[in-house]
Amino acid sequence: MKKMKMMYDLKPFERIDDLLTDGLKIIQNENEFCFSLDAVLLAHFANVHRKDCGLDLGTGTGVIPLLLANKAAKIHALEINPVTADIAKRNVILNNLSEKIIVQQADYRNIKEIFSAQFADFVIVNPPYRPLQKGYINDIDGVAKARHEITATLADVIAAAHYTLRFHGRFTMVHLPERLAEIIVQMRQNNIEPKRIRFVQPKTDKPPNMVLIEGVHGGAIGGLKVDRSLIVHNDDGTYTEELIKYYYPD
Amino acid sequence: MKKMKMMYDLKPFERIDDLLTDGLKIIQNENEFCFSLDAVLLAHFANVHRKDCGLDLGTGTGVIPLLLANKAAKIHALEINPVTADIAKRNVILNNLSEKIIVQQADYRNIKEIFSAQFADFVIVNPPYRPLQKGYINDIDGVAKARHEITATLADVIAAAHYTLRFHGRFTMVHLPERLAEIIVQMRQNNIEPKRIRFVQPKTDKPPNMVLIEGVHGGAIGGLKVDRSLIVHNDDGTYTEELIKYYYPD
Repeated sequence: MKKMKMMYDLKPFERIDDLLTDGLKIIQNENEFCFSLDAVLLAHFANVHRKDCGLDLGTGTGVIPLLLANKAAKIHALEINPVTADIAKRNVILNNLSEKIIVQQADYRNIKEIFSAQFADFVIVNPPYRPLQKGYINDIDGVAKARHEITATLADVIAAAHYTLRFHGRFTMVHLPERLAEIIVQMRQNNIEPKRIRFVQPKTDKPPNMVLIEGVHGGAIGGLKVDRSLIVHNDDGTYTEELIKYYYPD
Repeated sequence: MKKMKMMYDLKPFERIDDLLTDGLKIIQNENEFCFSLDAVLLAHFANVHRKDCGLDLGTGTGVIPLLLANKAAKIHALEINPVTADIAKRNVILNNLSEKIIVQQADYRNIKEIFSAQFADFVIVNPPYRPLQKGYINDIDGVAKARHEITATLADVIAAAHYTLRFHGRFTMVHLPERLAEIIVQMRQNNIEPKRIRFVQPKTDKPPNMVLIEGVHGGAIGGLKVDRSLIVHNDDGTYTEELIKYYYPD
């Protein structure tokens, strides 16, 4: 790792990790949010085609575009946090993907100032879960305000997806199961029909702690496919075969 | 079985089955819909309290009120089909439950003519899945009409639940996973917030073929609990321990 630090121009608290896919590497800052299993599962859940032009809303350090780069033609990535947006830009250069991935530091609540309408074949989102947890704490103090903040965030990201997705383009998101009803209602209100859901359970005997959901912009009502749950750990705590394949395909 | 036929006044094509719970028996007509696993799972999924007055919309031969009779104070049951409504009435008598269960032959689309508003602590529904299958066939011929019929049916039952449920009363339904998005949207439109979902998978490696859902009338938005999936069969085809307990609770 020290050698890496000399080779690449890392800033304080930054480190380079292997993405374990296609030989990809990723710079992360230990003081900022580091990507986790959610992003990897989301990237594998998404339906992405070779000629697709996609958009990642809230890309963080760019892990999702990096994982999808070989599957799509072009991926735009937005990140509001200047520190992580800067890392995402350097991750693209580090992996020689400047022709595929375009990172912009921007707030997707101003999406209409950044992109033209309906340009994207897919929109992918791994939103921060923090607002929800904050919401629960605030439930005790001041329910209304906390709720309003939460709803706005979910509504914002789905509205941004609705604006950028072409007709029949695909919206893919990972979130908490406890938000599923709100997610479905917001998707429907934005004319994005839920078509595929997969829950992620830590173990066979545990309830899901993540939900992966795909919707189609302008899709016909109904016809939702709920996949069998994805189990992360075997009973003995080791990773399941399916999960290991995400990291080491074949 | 022949002995039974002499003891009780059975009509042509009728038979008496054991409900395998509390010594309950049920008359069914072989030419009409016979209750299935769905009803049993729904009855076990429902939260019912001792003082509750409940309502079963579309009771069929009354299997759900029979299964819940010992848990609640009173259960009203509606059935549109006169043949099965008649059987349901006789099932109540057969099991000496006339003081607990009141069966009426009626169409729940006229719910306001039958019940006063907000009288029920819980409303439970095992709606027929037929309209959906018809819907899919019609998808090929005439999409719009078929869809309208389907939506009306789901909307009707949830509207009837909304009318009869008291504030914070519980709505519980079993349906197909592919209708989940529509169900959630309709519940929200009727101010019934989804609070608990459980999927039923035939086996661990199969996607769910049923979804159990509970909502609270006037419940706060959010806080949906998705339980771990209920698995019906072990890999060797036998019933799982959890399922056997539904029939033989030691």
